[in-house]
Amino acid sequence: MSALLHQLPVSLGRAAYDIHIGSGLIRNIQQLAGLQGRVLRVVTDSHLAALHLPALQAALGLEAGQVFVIPAGEPSKTWASAEQVLDWMLGQKLSRDALLVAFGGGVIGDLAGFCAALYQRGIGFVQVPTTLLAMVDSSVGGKTGVNHARGKNLIGAFHQPQAVVADLQLLKTLPARELAAGAAEVIKYGLLADAAFFAELEDGAIDRLMAVDAATTAAVVQRCCAIKAAIVAEDEFETTGRRALLNLGHTFGHAVETYTGYTEWLHGEAVGLGLVMAADLSARLGWITAEDARRCEALVARAGLPVRPPRGMTPSDFHRLMAGDKKVAAGQLRLVLLKPLGTAVLTADFDPQQLEATLAHFCA
Amino acid sequence: MSALLHQLPVSLGRAAYDIHIGSGLIRNIQQLAGLQGRVLRVVTDSHLAALHLPALQAALGLEAGQVFVIPAGEPSKTWASAEQVLDWMLGQKLSRDALLVAFGGGVIGDLAGFCAALYQRGIGFVQVPTTLLAMVDSSVGGKTGVNHARGKNLIGAFHQPQAVVADLQLLKTLPARELAAGAAEVIKYGLLADAAFFAELEDGAIDRLMAVDAATTAAVVQRCCAIKAAIVAEDEFETTGRRALLNLGHTFGHAVETYTGYTEWLHGEAVGLGLVMAADLSARLGWITAEDARRCEALVARAGLPVRPPRGMTPSDFHRLMAGDKKVAAGQLRLVLLKPLGTAVLTADFDPQQLEATLAHFCA
Repeated sequence: MSALLHQLPVSLGRAAYDIHIGSGLIRNIQQLAGLQGRVLRVVTDSHLAALHLPALQAALGLEAGQVFVIPAGEPSKTWASAEQVLDWMLGQKLSRDALLVAFGGGVIGDLAGFCAALYQRGIGFVQVPTTLLAMVDSSVGGKTGVNHARGKNLIGAFHQPQAVVADLQLLKTLPARELAAGAAEVIKYGLLADAAFFAELEDGAIDRLMAVDAATTAAVVQRCCAIKAAIVAEDEFETTGRRALLNLGHTFGHAVETYTGYTEWLHGEAVGLGLVMAADLSARLGWITAEDARRCEALVARAGLPVRPPRGMTPSDFHRLMAGDKKVAAGQLRLVLLKPLGTAVLTADFDPQQLEATLAHFCA
Repeated sequence: MSALLHQLPVSLGRAAYDIHIGSGLIRNIQQLAGLQGRVLRVVTDSHLAALHLPALQAALGLEAGQVFVIPAGEPSKTWASAEQVLDWMLGQKLSRDALLVAFGGGVIGDLAGFCAALYQRGIGFVQVPTTLLAMVDSSVGGKTGVNHARGKNLIGAFHQPQAVVADLQLLKTLPARELAAGAAEVIKYGLLADAAFFAELEDGAIDRLMAVDAATTAAVVQRCCAIKAAIVAEDEFETTGRRALLNLGHTFGHAVETYTGYTEWLHGEAVGLGLVMAADLSARLGWITAEDARRCEALVARAGLPVRPPRGMTPSDFHRLMAGDKKVAAGQLRLVLLKPLGTAVLTADFDPQQLEATLAHFCA
């Protein structure tokens, strides 16, 4: 049975679209995302090809040759992979009215969305996120792109999907480690925009989420998407600083991912640590209480996420890798911090000695 | 002396900007394009590096290491070149508030604009066109991108410059063949939007343009930019079909460029032939007079441009290469044709036998 639980509009002027959240939605994807009669192609990864791709292919009526499969994992999110996808799309002779379906987690969504953005200067695409992280975060908002040896997402484009279809049933087969990675972004939304939601997670929602309880999962995905959609609608192209708040924890996190070559830590794991570090710094600055910082670390740890950087990573590694962050302006590092818990600020106006103290504390 | 002859606004909502047209403008570029106090980098080609780059560098106060030089010519407009430029930009540690200056012809403008579009999901850029073709056409309107073995400009992005600075003095050193290539786009504007302008070109303006007469050049660049800016303002993202009219002659022309591997024919030369073929087909369809088609061929030839395809190219080569055109919709080839001279239409509604007759005539 296909139960459509929720339809959430993302208001973006010329690029408005809906996020569909529910269980078993893939069966109805043609109707939900308005795909009838369209030329469609799918980009997915090797894990999904073995698991859920047959169901999607059947729902879309596609043959194997109409699906492009890349190796699963963050190392596939490169300029070279994008070239392979674009070569394949050109070989399929897609015209501008074709649609690309991104079927996977954040890597697939970002990579396929990037290729849709560039193919003949932009064709439509649909996000079908298959991980918790992609459902609550990366599939919404139109950020697409690839990584570079110098850092995450340094090359990319803003390109909004035509629809997002989040089928919660897919989470039932998601490995626990991937689920935890998604929980990091969930905790992020509570910290940056909704202290009551953070408290609900502490009150047990986080455990039910990790157990993939149906009602909890649906409620959590809806709440996170609503927060993200509202912020993206206010600042689609990240020009006012509002959208940058969604980067809470990401500056520290990206440094860890780059340090470890994108292969050891999942993005969400790095973000979880980043949240803990951002909360620690916020507390040192007196912007949240020490107790709030402790609550943040406890909740991240409870989701099964690491709360310390990889062994051997030093404060100077953090400095070096954070200097290339996209939020750097006029040569100055800007961080998203909490002031107070439930509200985030983007600022360069913090005591650098407190940043040193945070880095020293975590790298000890 | 720097004489600012003309300032032409391009009205595009959030991306409005000015085109500055005049002689000796490079000296004042900082002020004209609002570059004071900005972190700047330049992308240019090997021809310009030897010729006009020192003047630009002096005007911008840049060192040699702050300029990226690619080999001159269409073969540089590739995915691999874009990667080189992006690698260099990342190595320069540019933040999102940096500006990229594209100093060159269409290849440099399209490539540097593409890299500006993708660098950290988009930074500002300034077009400083150095060829007639770039001044009247490619520098205006925000189309950026690279070529692919399967066709021209098949990968790209819409990304508007912050300003266009067309210094007419640069045309004095432009080779005659490049000047003629630009004249093809000039003739295009007369054919598609301004029959009176076409008649003025016939009445001698084309010859004065080829002799780089100062007053004529200024008037021609202004007129062409005004036509282009008006059309782009109506249809920035080529969704209504209006902007596609600027592609008059380009479907035939791109086929020739792809057939010859982008190395033998200049883009403008291929467009010139494309205009003659589009006019021929329009006449066969009874949409313009046979005399108008003859006038078009005569004017293109008078600018020193080829009016027949490369030896050995057959009608089936044209069919094969035109099938990948970006204007193909629902599997159907759409062409920009004249109806009547001075007005262009984008249509799939033409007698295919007349297209065969045109191809047979030109490939004879």
